[in-house]
Order: sequence, then structure tokens, then C-alpha cells
Amino acid sequence: MARVLVLHGPNLNLLGRREPEVYGHTTLEEIDRRLRQYAAAHQVDIEIMQSNHEGELVNAIQGAAGRADALIINAGAYTHTSVALRDAIVAVDIPTIEVHLSNLARREAFRHHSYLTAVAVGQIMGFGADSYLLGLHAAILHLSRRLT
Amino acid sequence: MARVLVLHGPNLNLLGRREPEVYGHTTLEEIDRRLRQYAAAHQVDIEIMQSNHEGELVNAIQGAAGRADALIINAGAYTHTSVALRDAIVAVDIPTIEVHLSNLARREAFRHHSYLTAVAVGQIMGFGADSYLLGLHAAILHLSRRLT
Amino acid sequence: MARVLVLHGPNLNLLGRREPEVYGHTTLEEIDRRLRQYAAAHQVDIEIMQSNHEGELVNAIQGAAGRADALIINAGAYTHTSVALRDAIVAVDIPTIEVHLSNLARREAFRHHSYLTAVAVGQIMGFGADSYLLGLHAAILHLSRRLT
Amino acid sequence: MARVLVLHGPNLNLLGRREPEVYGHTTLEEIDRRLRQYAAAHQVDIEIMQSNHEGELVNAIQGAAGRADALIINAGAYTHTSVALRDAIVAVDIPTIEVHLSNLARREAFRHHSYLTAVAVGQIMGFGADSYLLGLHAAILHLSRRLT
Amino acid sequence: MARVLVLHGPNLNLLGRREPEVYGHTTLEEIDRRLRQYAAAHQVDIEIMQSNHEGELVNAIQGAAGRADALIINAGAYTHTSVALRDAIVAVDIPTIEVHLSNLARREAFRHHSYLTAVAVGQIMGFGADSYLLGLHAAILHLSRRLT
Amino acid sequence: MARVLVLHGPNLNLLGRREPEVYGHTTLEEIDRRLRQYAAAHQVDIEIMQSNHEGELVNAIQGAAGRADALIINAGAYTHTSVALRDAIVAVDIPTIEVHLSNLARREAFRHHSYLTAVAVGQIMGFGADSYLLGLHAAILHLSRRLT
Amino acid sequence: MARVLVLHGPNLNLLGRREPEVYGHTTLEEIDRRLRQYAAAHQVDIEIMQSNHEGELVNAIQGAAGRADALIINAGAYTHTSVALRDAIVAVDIPTIEVHLSNLARREAFRHHSYLTAVAVGQIMGFGADSYLLGLHAAILHLSRRLT
Amino acid sequence: MARVLVLHGPNLNLLGRREPEVYGHTTLEEIDRRLRQYAAAHQVDIEIMQSNHEGELVNAIQGAAGRADALIINAGAYTHTSVALRDAIVAVDIPTIEVHLSNLARREAFRHHSYLTAVAVGQIMGFGADSYLLGLHAAILHLSRRLT
Amino acid sequence: MARVLVLHGPNLNLLGRREPEVYGHTTLEEIDRRLRQYAAAHQVDIEIMQSNHEGELVNAIQGAAGRADALIINAGAYTHTSVALRDAIVAVDIPTIEVHLSNLARREAFRHHSYLTAVAVGQIMGFGADSYLLGLHAAILHLSRRLT
Amino acid sequence: MARVLVLHGPNLNLLGRREPEVYGHTTLEEIDRRLRQYAAAHQVDIEIMQSNHEGELVNAIQGAAGRADALIINAGAYTHTSVALRDAIVAVDIPTIEVHLSNLARREAFRHHSYLTAVAVGQIMGFGADSYLLGLHAAILHLSRRLT
Amino acid sequence: MARVLVLHGPNLNLLGRREPEVYGHTTLEEIDRRLRQYAAAHQVDIEIMQSNHEGELVNAIQGAAGRADALIINAGAYTHTSVALRDAIVAVDIPTIEVHLSNLARREAFRHHSYLTAVAVGQIMGFGADSYLLGLHAAILHLSRRLT
Amino acid sequence: MARVLVLHGPNLNLLGRREPEVYGHTTLEEIDRRLRQYAAAHQVDIEIMQSNHEGELVNAIQGAAGRADALIINAGAYTHTSVALRDAIVAVDIPTIEVHLSNLARREAFRHHSYLTAVAVGQIMGFGADSYLLGLHAAILHLSRRLT
Repeated sequence: MARVLVLHGPNLNLLGRREPEVYGHTTLEEIDRRLRQYAAAHQVDIEIMQSNHEGELVNAIQGAAGRADALIINAGAYTHTSVALRDAIVAVDIPTIEVHLSNLARREAFRHHSYLTAVAVGQIMGFGADSYLLGLHAAILHLSRRLT
Repeated sequence: MARVLVLHGPNLNLLGRREPEVYGHTTLEEIDRRLRQYAAAHQVDIEIMQSNHEGELVNAIQGAAGRADALIINAGAYTHTSVALRDAIVAVDIPTIEVHLSNLARREAFRHHSYLTAVAVGQIMGFGADSYLLGLHAAILHLSRRLT
Repeated sequence: MARVLVLHGPNLNLLGRREPEVYGHTTLEEIDRRLRQYAAAHQVDIEIMQSNHEGELVNAIQGAAGRADALIINAGAYTHTSVALRDAIVAVDIPTIEVHLSNLARREAFRHHSYLTAVAVGQIMGFGADSYLLGLHAAILHLSRRLT
Repeated sequence: MARVLVLHGPNLNLLGRREPEVYGHTTLEEIDRRLRQYAAAHQVDIEIMQSNHEGELVNAIQGAAGRADALIINAGAYTHTSVALRDAIVAVDIPTIEVHLSNLARREAFRHHSYLTAVAVGQIMGFGADSYLLGLHAAILHLSRRLT
Repeated sequence: MARVLVLHGPNLNLLGRREPEVYGHTTLEEIDRRLRQYAAAHQVDIEIMQSNHEGELVNAIQGAAGRADALIINAGAYTHTSVALRDAIVAVDIPTIEVHLSNLARREAFRHHSYLTAVAVGQIMGFGADSYLLGLHAAILHLSRRLT
Repeated sequence: MARVLVLHGPNLNLLGRREPEVYGHTTLEEIDRRLRQYAAAHQVDIEIMQSNHEGELVNAIQGAAGRADALIINAGAYTHTSVALRDAIVAVDIPTIEVHLSNLARREAFRHHSYLTAVAVGQIMGFGADSYLLGLHAAILHLSRRLT
Repeated sequence: MARVLVLHGPNLNLLGRREPEVYGHTTLEEIDRRLRQYAAAHQVDIEIMQSNHEGELVNAIQGAAGRADALIINAGAYTHTSVALRDAIVAVDIPTIEVHLSNLARREAFRHHSYLTAVAVGQIMGFGADSYLLGLHAAILHLSRRLT
Repeated sequence: MARVLVLHGPNLNLLGRREPEVYGHTTLEEIDRRLRQYAAAHQVDIEIMQSNHEGELVNAIQGAAGRADALIINAGAYTHTSVALRDAIVAVDIPTIEVHLSNLARREAFRHHSYLTAVAVGQIMGFGADSYLLGLHAAILHLSRRLT
Repeated sequence: MARVLVLHGPNLNLLGRREPEVYGHTTLEEIDRRLRQYAAAHQVDIEIMQSNHEGELVNAIQGAAGRADALIINAGAYTHTSVALRDAIVAVDIPTIEVHLSNLARREAFRHHSYLTAVAVGQIMGFGADSYLLGLHAAILHLSRRLT
Repeated sequence: MARVLVLHGPNLNLLGRREPEVYGHTTLEEIDRRLRQYAAAHQVDIEIMQSNHEGELVNAIQGAAGRADALIINAGAYTHTSVALRDAIVAVDIPTIEVHLSNLARREAFRHHSYLTAVAVGQIMGFGADSYLLGLHAAILHLSRRLT
Repeated sequence: MARVLVLHGPNLNLLGRREPEVYGHTTLEEIDRRLRQYAAAHQVDIEIMQSNHEGELVNAIQGAAGRADALIINAGAYTHTSVALRDAIVAVDIPTIEVHLSNLARREAFRHHSYLTAVAVGQIMGFGADSYLLGLHAAILHLSRRLT
Repeated sequence: MARVLVLHGPNLNLLGRREPEVYGHTTLEEIDRRLRQYAAAHQVDIEIMQSNHEGELVNAIQGAAGRADALIINAGAYTHTSVALRDAIVAVDIPTIEVHLSNLARREAFRHHSYLTAVAVGQIMGFGADSYLLGLHAAILHLSRRLT
């Protein structure tokens, strides 16, 4: 049974209340509920964690070594500033899928670059809460391809 | 019944033969077959078209006005050079999903910028042939959200 | 009797329907009608052509050699990406006037540069459909100055 | 009866004598004469002013508030260096048409940027003394469109 | 017997008439005649094609797969703007030689970069019509080296 | 009674000992004492917090939602590197005043950009410990203007 | 008794009428009235001057030598273009406080750089008319610190 | 007896398992063992600490004030993103030696810049685990020079 | 008898008092005295003018047409910001020698570029008050060469 | 009888031993032998010289004045750093052909620019040792065209 | 017995006399003496050479092939400008250690880039004369690791 | 008696023959003759040297220590590429005057930057052969000022 770790970065705990014109009205709890539902329906073991600390996110990625088959990460603001998260992903060598709620290409120039994309399998962005579901779908497809 | 138009840009007709270490061994016909299968399973009306001509792709997008509810586009090389495709997408005002087989962030610097992302709903890249399936999934989710 | 060729680039065929808050509600047919009317009133022989294909626009410019005394061109998106159009204008050596409906300086940064301006006589932009009339006026003035 | 203020920036008083290979042999007096003639023929009230002082040009724009319906400005060298003129145009909120004798895209790189274009209705350049006549024509068209 | 495909890009059909101070007075027909003569003298099977359409040039390169042992391409203006041509060259994996009539380093800055060089075997430029003959010579040498 | 939260970023706890030629000899305790004094004199409820952890500062801003009417923040080094703090400020939507002890324009180039200014009401810098008092004064003025 | 000179740069005389969504509805007269009131309350001798001419502002700064203990300057558009004002401030060696009504970091990129900040004591911006009062407060604090 | 503090930044705890082709097979424990051995042999008191948290590393540097005579720091990913670490080093004013396992000039462009080098005594990189030993040697030499 | 016009730009009237560590202790009056002395000794008719107004300096250059054989200009701060002065020099077509007291290459980056150099005969900088004497010497040599 | 000087720049004496995966296994002696053979077959007088000293290469180019009709130069590393070689080529005014063994566009970014190309007739690169033969062929063609 | 070649670049012969505030008071002779002493103590055969000529340094590196097991190079000014030295190091394929007396990150921006680092094993800088001793230590460690 | 060393850089030995439209028809011998004449007339001991080798110019500057009171240097092409010459000038600490025959601001962009200016007393350029005479005049003035 495939094991997937989902990581939410800084300020995502405020989802639904924070800038709804950018991020929508869905709360993080609602996203997590949908993810667990989708995971259950596809026989995937899912674990979810949120933190505002870069160091805790690094720890979580390190801790996934040997315990997760894929990572789904929305690193929030750290997407654009954290080399440490990038290094952690490379170090544990777990296939990683980068997701974003908003379409970063429509936002400030400093959000157009991600330190994570080049070390991830792929990137999904712009579909609001659905970005996570699509990320989980992508993880399932990716893991099944590797088995064959 | 939702109608989706899938557009393949230049050189995608060579898929499977072209740089398999970058794009994999799946042919375009195989991708189209999977897309039709997925579309049928989800009651979506699908149309697919490939062209090496920027102008024909512009025409195809223009022709979709009133005939498609969503576009899925892998503009290939034109992703990085075509303002005309961007303008066509804006002009017809149909929700558009940008997909790429490879993870562009891992490739040459000139492939890191897309003229299309900022006018698309979102972007999915790096999952090989699965990027298209995920794009179709995203289109279905997006259209269903708009109905509610 | 002076002969003027007017070229409309990609997506201009959608005028009036496409982004009216940027381009206004006038259709391309209406613009062409006004141009023919103005041309007739000033004894100018006018020919008008639109294409979404860069290659066809190159062909049209090449075909104008010996058949037109001036070109008025709104190359649309190709303004910012086409060296081929620039080369064609230089090759046929016909005085060319660049026009734009919108004020490009108010739009995305990539629209601030035109490959055509430096090989044109001059540029007129920002006056909506009137940009074309002013372009035709400019062509008439330019040709009359060259006769004297 | 529409009132138009025409502003000539620094060194334009030397026109005809200054770099004729760039600016032509027409003097500023001749340009002003043609403008008055064209204005008279089109029932437009015209006022013309030249200054080498940035501050005086700012004052002139400020003074146009409530006294002019449109500005035609060739800010000369200040085009490329004056934020103060830009701010003055925005402050008085009078439709402004930017004109240039020469085609700036053919000249030094520092002349390719104008602080004024983005706050003007539009720009006309490259037609020598005719740029002014076309600017007046544009102003008349612009004002007539606003009435309807 | 080695088979070579020669591709001429946009506006090269005007050669001899177009900017002779840059490109010389030799016509494209004359260049093609010399190429056929040189090919015949060296037992090379040669095919030549010109197009103003990026898409047709992409098609021609794709069509060369299995039918040509080497490509000689002067992509003209598309040299500087076409990722699609670059991708086509990589996709068919035929040794390609890039030629230019003029010395691009002496011209506008935007002509200093070529999308094709990095995927070609090599580049020859600046020798006018002779660039093509040298390109054919280079192709013959390159193919003979690969045999040994 | 207005409630103000003052946040001190990394290394500010060393104030008075750290680079006195840049930051002066006043300690953070002295600054806090003056702030409390000024707050008391103006009937403002003040809370003060310092941290060297980006994540804790994010938490503190999040925790201010509903508990503070204004933020005064000197994010220290994180001013130049933290998108997470910027996002937190936007998320809680509390009017924020950015203060700095030193005049950043006189220091290293990487200190000339702040991720926070564009989401703050305003910025005060260069007045040493007085920057905080002025920031509190600004907060009081800002809140009083919003009431009227 | 401390003497302070307040300088208003170009277009600030239009305050209240000019772009109220950016600069607010307060007029310059109202700002000056508040400044004089605040100065009187704090036993400060205040002088105020506005000009649209860069040269007059330079003269005013030069004239302050020996006659003012501090300068408060909102150089308006000249903030971004005037090295002459910077040089004048350095030449007279009077402590200078730079103020701005709007938050420049939220506006056009060319307003993000100020030639004056690096030669000023400090900068205050974004508080509308209050920026001046805070500037005066800062001047009083600065001068009192220098006495001790 | 000289006291040296060695700081390891994020992801260095994974050493030996993480990207051995870049960082080698030596574990952090092995490096620490060698450092202690070398320190003992040279009568140096050594303390070693690793953290994935930027804030904890800042705290560790602050805590070294008065307790260490030299710092040896491999800040890992924070080398390229942390102004806070730089500020902490300057604040405590302890001679600092920057070390790296890999040769950063051979890696991604964003690793070519270090915020720490300019505030360190010097930098040693590219010698794998030996970089630390060389760093300790450098510290001993540096401290002995300062005594004389 | 050769006629030379010497122009001093903004803030040069403060010379001797302004930043003596940069500009020395010589006053402008002293420089002018030396210039007149040197001119008298070499039978040159000299006129000298200083202004803080860009527009007045433009006027002075324009007024030199037909009245001066050479210009010596130290445009001060306008060196780096004034296209209007550059245009005036070109317009009057009088050989111009650019002088500076300080060595601009040793100062702030924005002082490394001069709008005037490319339209001047040559540039002399870094010799303090002597730069003017050398400029006058250069003017005399230049004019004498043109006579032969 | 045409006289050609061939210049080999620094490190080319190591050819065949140096980085064979980049430069191939042919030695410089072998290249020189082929060049002499080709020259003999085409009645060309050839002289060949190699140096690791920029100054000696400058001397060699200067010495060619009046003694060579064409230069073929592979300046190796000096291609990218030597303005002195560029100046020497311009000074002697002998038609120069730039050759490179490798395709510079495939290598480090600093090798994409050549100081020599803009002053050479043309450039040939990427054909290994054949680049020299093609260069000699180009020289012969170039000289024969100039005779006619 | 390991053989090490130490190369000193331009102006290092002036050490001790040249800018002692940057480079210290130790002479090159003193450094060489310490190096020989350290080499003798560690059974290393050492050769040392200094030159102001880029070409001689290239020759020295070439001459080390087969005669040295490691290079220690302080290329001085050529560090920042010489591609020829870089190419020579790669050509001879001898492990190279780059050393610098000063901390280049604290000096002019053009000294922040080294052409040599990316082809060296590693870099040591900032420790004055000790940088050489550390470089020799690094060479010994590096060579001993390769043996195991 | 003041001693002055004049250094001519690469290709200056060709003066008079090399690009006379840029550098004039005067030969280097003629320049040297004039310099000696001027030196004799002003009781200055003058030594002159030319070299095409960067290393020899470095040696010459080093050799001037204790033997020259001022350097006059036209480093030719090395002006733009040689850090070694800059370092040599700083090392010997002799006042240096940079001269150029042509006005570098009118030439290629890469000639707009000089590595020498910031370490020279001043710069004189654009006066042809007279630049040297003015440089000698400047040296004499500079040395005489230092005596007083």
C-alpha cells in the first residue's frame, strides 16, 4: 500500500480566511478531509502535516525517508526562498510533487521562481484546492508507473 | 456534456521517437487513445488536434469559441515564443489548462518561461504522458466547480 | 494614384469580440470600411489583408514589392516576436507605418518592444480604430512629401 | 469649440538648424504655422508654448487644467528623464498625445524609453513635422469620440 | 551515396534583391545551382527547399528523418526566434550544419543569439554565398569522418 | 483602547552590544521601556515580542489576528529574505508599520529591498531607537484617521 | 530655538486635487497649516516652500546653510531623477529627513529608487499627510539627540 | 586553551546518505570524531552543534559570545539565503571560518553566492570532509597569529 | 581671437565649502580667476557662467551658437541625468570639452555614466581645479589643430 | 600566390592530449600537416605559428602586415578575453577567418562571446580539426572573390 | 614522494611592500620559506615559481604534466581574467588548489568571480600567508585520499 | 627634477597606420618626440616605453618604483581587460594619469569601462595625440601641487 506524505508550508493554516480572492474559501481542514477521502478510495496511506517553520518542514522531509513513497508539497512562501527544503528533498530521494493553490505566473515576479520544481517530479498549480487532489492523483500514477 | 479541445503543438507528432530520455516512449497516438478512454469514462466530449504551424494553432483556438468548454494545450516549443497563442486564448475566453510532458525547470533556461501560463487556469508539468490525463482531470474538476 | 497595403496580424479578425476593454467594440470589418472610405476620399488605392500565419504575412509583404507604395501594418502579437516580418519589410524597401489599437506602454512588459519600429517610418498607437485612419493619413502625407 | 495646448520641450526652438539629418529642415515657427492653419480649418482653439525648463513645462501643464481639452506634447529630451512631467499630466487629467519628430527606436538606447507614453492616450512618432499634424488630428478624433 | 537536405528560411527567396550591401548580389537560384554543381562533383545527393513558414520548415526537417544524412540550414530570421526548429533538429537526430550569409556578430544584438547552434554540429557564417559551399564541404567531411 | 503589537526580528536582542557604530548604544530593553512609556502616555495597549526564528514571527503575526489593531515590525535580517512574513501580514490584514533603526539605503545592496514594505502601510527608517517611537506615533495617527 | 525648512517638490501644489486615490484629499495648504501648528506647539521655527523647478529647490537647499538646523523634504518626482538635489543636501550638510505621502514600494518600479535616501538621516513614507508631521517629529527628536 | 565552536547547517545530519556523488560517504559523526581528534591533538577545546533551524543556528552563534574564540561554520543551504546568520556573526564579533564540503563553483548558480563569506575571516571549500579539518587548522593558525 | 565659454553646473557655486575631501578647498571664484589668467596669457576670450537650473544651462549653450568657438563644461550632477544638455551641445555643434573636478570612477556607480561624453570632443577628470586649466589647454590645442 | 598565416592560441599545443572528449584525438602537428597538404594542393603559401602568450600573438598579427593575404586564427582562450588581438586584426586590416575546434555554443556561457568575430570576415566552428581545413577553404574562396 | 608545484601570479613578487593593509607584511620569500619548511616536514617535493606573464604561467602549468602531482595556484589578478590558465589546468588534469591571501568577497565586485575555482579541487582564501600553508595541507590530504 | 614614465600599451606601435579615422595620422614616434620636447621645456625627466605584452607592462610599472614620480599610461586594449595592470599601479603607489587618444564613450560598449581609472589620479581622453601632452601637463601640475 503506497504511503504519501502531504506537507503544507507557512500560512496555509489560515486558508479560507486568508486572501480569499487569491486562495478561495476552502479551509485547510476541508482540503485535508478531501485528500483523506481520495486516498482511502485509492488505497493510499496518507499523512498530512503543516508548519510555519522552515526547519520543521526540513525535519518532516528527512523523517519521511523510508516511511513515505511520495511527497506532495505546497511549500507556500518557502517555495521561493528555501534552498534547505530543496536540499532535503534531494537528500531523501523520494519522488516529490509540487502543488500550489494559485497560478504563480499571475502574481508578483518573486513568486515566478521556485527552488523546488527542478528537484520535483513535476508541478501542478492554479486549481485551488483541486491542486492537491490532482497532486495525489499524479502521485498514484507516478508510483504505479514505477512498479511496471 | 462538457466539451474539451486538446491541442498538441510542434514536434509532438514525433513523440515516442523523439528524445525518449526526455519525453518517454509513449507515442502521441497512445496519449490520444488514453485521453479518449478517460473522456468516455467521464462523459466528456473530446476533440484532439496537432499542428506544427503557429497559425493553425491560433486558428484552432479561435475555432473553439462556442464549441469547447475547456482547452488543454501543450504548445511545445511555441510555449516559449508565441504571444499569438496567448492572445488567442485570451480572445476566446475559454478556460485553458497548460500541460507539459517534461519538467521544464530541469531544462534549458529559455524553457523556464511560458507565455501561456499567466492566461491559463493552471499548469501541470513533468508527469510524461500522465500530464495530459491530469490535465483532463483538472478540466473536469474546474468545469464542475463553475457549475456550482 | 498611391497604392497602400494594410496588413492585420493574428487575432485581429476577432476584433470587437476580443477583450473589448482593451481593444474597443469596433470590428475589423468596420475598421476596413472606414479605411476604404477614407482612402476613396483621398484618391488612394487600398488593399487589406488579415492572417494568423507569420509566413503568410511575410508572403504578403514580399508580394507588395512593386505593387504598393506604402504599408500600414498592425502585426498584433508578431510585433513582439517576429524578426521575419522585420526582414521582409527591409527586403521590399517600401515605406511602412506601424499602428496599434492599444497603447502598448500600458500593457505587459513584453509588449513594450517591437521588432518593427526601427525599420518603419514611424509608429502610431493608442487611438483604437482611429490608429488605422491616422496611419493612412500619415502614409498619404509621407508619400506626398517624397514627391516634392 | 475644443481647446488644445501644444507643448514643445527643450531645444525644439532650434528646429531646422539642429541636426537636420535627424530632425529635418522645417523650423518650429513653420510647424506652429501649420498647426494653427490645421486648427483653424477644424474649428479648434489652439495654444502653443515652448520651453527649455522642465519646471516651466510642469507649470504649463498645471495651468492647462480647466483651460484645455487635450494636450499635444513633444517633451524632447525630457521625454526620457522627467517623472515630473508625467506626474503633471496625471495630475491635471487632460487627455494627452505624445508626439516625436524622429523615430526614437532608430536612435540611442536611452531614447527608447519614454516616461510619458504610459500616461498618454497614445503616441505618434517618426513623421517629422507631420507628427504634430497627425497629433492634432488624433486629438480631434479622440475628443469627438468622447462626445458620442 | 550521402544525401543532404538544404533548407533556406524566410526572405531568402529575395536574395540578390534584398539589402545587397548586407547579403550580396547573388540570387538564391545561383546559390542552389552552385550547391548542385558541388554536390554532383562530390557524388552527393542534394535536395533544396525554401519556405517563409516556420511550420513548413519544421515539417521539412521532420520529413528528412530516414531520407537525409545531413542538414544544412540557413534559418534566416527564425534562427533567432524559433525553438520549434531547434526541437525538430533534435527530434530527427540528423547531423545539422548552420550557415549564414552575413557575419551575425556585426549586426543587431538580437541576431547574436541563435537557437540552433547548440544543437548543430557546427556553424559557418560571414562568407556570403560561399557559406553554403563551405557548409556542404563540412557536411561531406563530417559524414566521411563518421564512416571511419 | 487601541492595541499595538511590536515585533523585533533576529539579532535585535543583541542591540547596544551589536555593531554600535551602525545601531547605536541603546539596548532593546531601553527601546521597549520607551515604547511602553509612550504607549501609556497615549492610552495605547502595547505588547512586545522578539524572536530569532522566522516561524515564530509568522506565528506571532497570525496570533495577532483579532487581538491587535496595528503591528509595528522591525524584521531585521528577515526583512530582506522572508516571503513568509509578508504573507502572514497580508493574511491577518492588520495595518502594519515597518521600522528600521539604520538607514538601509546607506548599507549593503541586498538590504535595499524589503519584502514587507509593499504590504505595510508605510516605512520609517534611519532614526535609531527613535524609529520605534515614530512608528508608534504613526500607528496612533493611522488608527485615529480610520476612526474618522 | 530649532529652525526647520520644509521643501515640497513638483506637483505637490496640486495636492488634494491630484490623484486623490493615491495622495488623499488633504491640500498642501492644510498640510502646511498642520505643520505650523505642530511646530508652534513644539517651539520650532518653521519655513515652508514649494517649487516645480529643480533649480529652485537646489537654491532653497543652498540658502538653508546657516539658516536651518534640519530639512524635511518631499522631492516628489525629483526624488527619482535628481542628483542635483542630492548633491545640494550633501553640500550644505544639514540633517535631512525624506518624506513621502504614498508608499513608494506599492507604485511603479521607477519610484522604488530615491537619490536622496542615502544622504538623508532617514525616510518616512506611506502615511499620507501624516508623513510630514512624523517627519517634523523625527527632526525634533534628531536635533534633541544631537544636543545631548 | 583556545575554544572553537563548529556549526553544521541544515541537512548535514544526513551526510554520507545524502547525494554521495556530491558530498562523499563520510557521515557527520565521522567528521565530528576527526575534528575532536584533531582538536585534542592541538590542545583546542571544541564544541559541535547541528541544526536544521535557521533560528537555532542564530541562537548558537549568539550564545558563543564570550564562550568561543573562533567559529567554524558550514551553513549548508542557509549559506545562500540567510542574512540572519550573517548578522549574528557580525554581532558577536568572533573570527569565523566558512567551510563547505563541495566546490560551490561547480554547482547551481544560486550556490555561487554566500552571504557569510564577506563577514568571515576566510573560506575553505571543495575538500569534502577535509574542509573541516583544514578549517580547524586555519582557526588555530588565525588565533595564534592574533596572539603575537 | 578664440572665444571660449566655460559652464559650471549645479552646486559648483558652493565649491570650497562643499565636501572639501572630495572637491578640495579651492572656491569657484579662485578657479575662474585662474581660468581668466590662463586665457589672457594665451590670447583667448573667455566667458564664464554658473547655474543650478538645467534650463538655464541649456539656454547658455544655445546662446553660444555663433558666439563661442569652444565650450568647457562641468555639468555637475546634470552630467548623469540631463539628455537636454546633450541635445543642446549637439544642436549648436560647438566643440565641447567635458571636465570634472573629481575622478568619477572612484565615486557612486550612478556617477560612472555621463550623457555628455559621447557628444564631447573629450573628457578630463580627477585633477581638482586643474581639470579646468587642462580643459582650457585642450580647447586651445583643439582649436589650433582645426585651423591647420 | 596567396599567402595565409595560421595562428594557434594558448593550450592548442596540447591538442590530442587535452580533453579529447571536447577536442578530439588529433594533434596540432597532424592539423598542421593537413593544412600544409591542402595549401600545397591549392597553390597557397602557408605559415603556421602557435603561442601561449597574448603579446606574441599580437606581434605575429602585426608582423603579418604586408606578408600575408589572409589570417586564420583559433585564438583559444584569448577569443573570449583579448581586446588586444581584436585591435591587432583591425590595425593590420588583413581578412581574418576565425575558427574553433569545438562548438562554443555547447560550452560554458563565457565561451559564447568572441571579441574577434565582429572584426573577422566570418567564423567556422564545431568541426574539430576540419574547422581549420574549412577555414583555409574559406580563405581561398574569399581571396579569389576579391580578385574578381 | 608527492611532488607539488606552487604558482604565484602577477604582482605577488611585491608582497610585503604592496598594500600591506590588504595583503599583510609577509614577503613572498618568507612565504616560500615556510612552504619549503612545511613540505620538508611532510616529505613533499616542492617547486615554486612566480611570473607576471599569463603566457609563462600557462607554460608552467603545461610543464607540470607528468612532473607534479598537485598544483597550488594563487593566480593574482589573472584569477579574474584568464581563461587560458583555466584551460591549461583542465588540459594537464593535475589536481589544483586555488589559494588567495585576501578574502575576495570583501573586495571589488570584479574580484568575486574566479575563472579557476570551477576547475580546481577547492579554494582557500582569506588567511593571508597561511592560505598557502593550508593549501599545501589540503594538497597532502587530497593526494593521500586518492591513494586509498 | 620630476621623473615621469610614459607607457604605451598594445598596438600603439602601429599608430598612424592603424585606423587613422579613429586614431589620426600621427605616429608614435611623433608623439614621443613631442612629449620629450614638452618635458625638456618644463625640466621634466621623461622615459617612454611601449609593449604588446601585458606582463612587460606590469614589469615596467613595478620597475618604476623609486625611479618615477608619476606614470602616464595609455594601456590600449589592456585598459578594458587587465586587472594585473591595475594591481601593479596600486602596488607601486605612484600617481598615475590615464590617457586615451580616442573618446572611448563613442566606441564599442566594452571600451566604456576601464580597470585603471579608479586607481589613477585622473583620466584624459579624446584629444588624439594631444591627450599625451595634456597628460604630461597634468602630471606636472599634480606633482607641483603635492610639493606645496
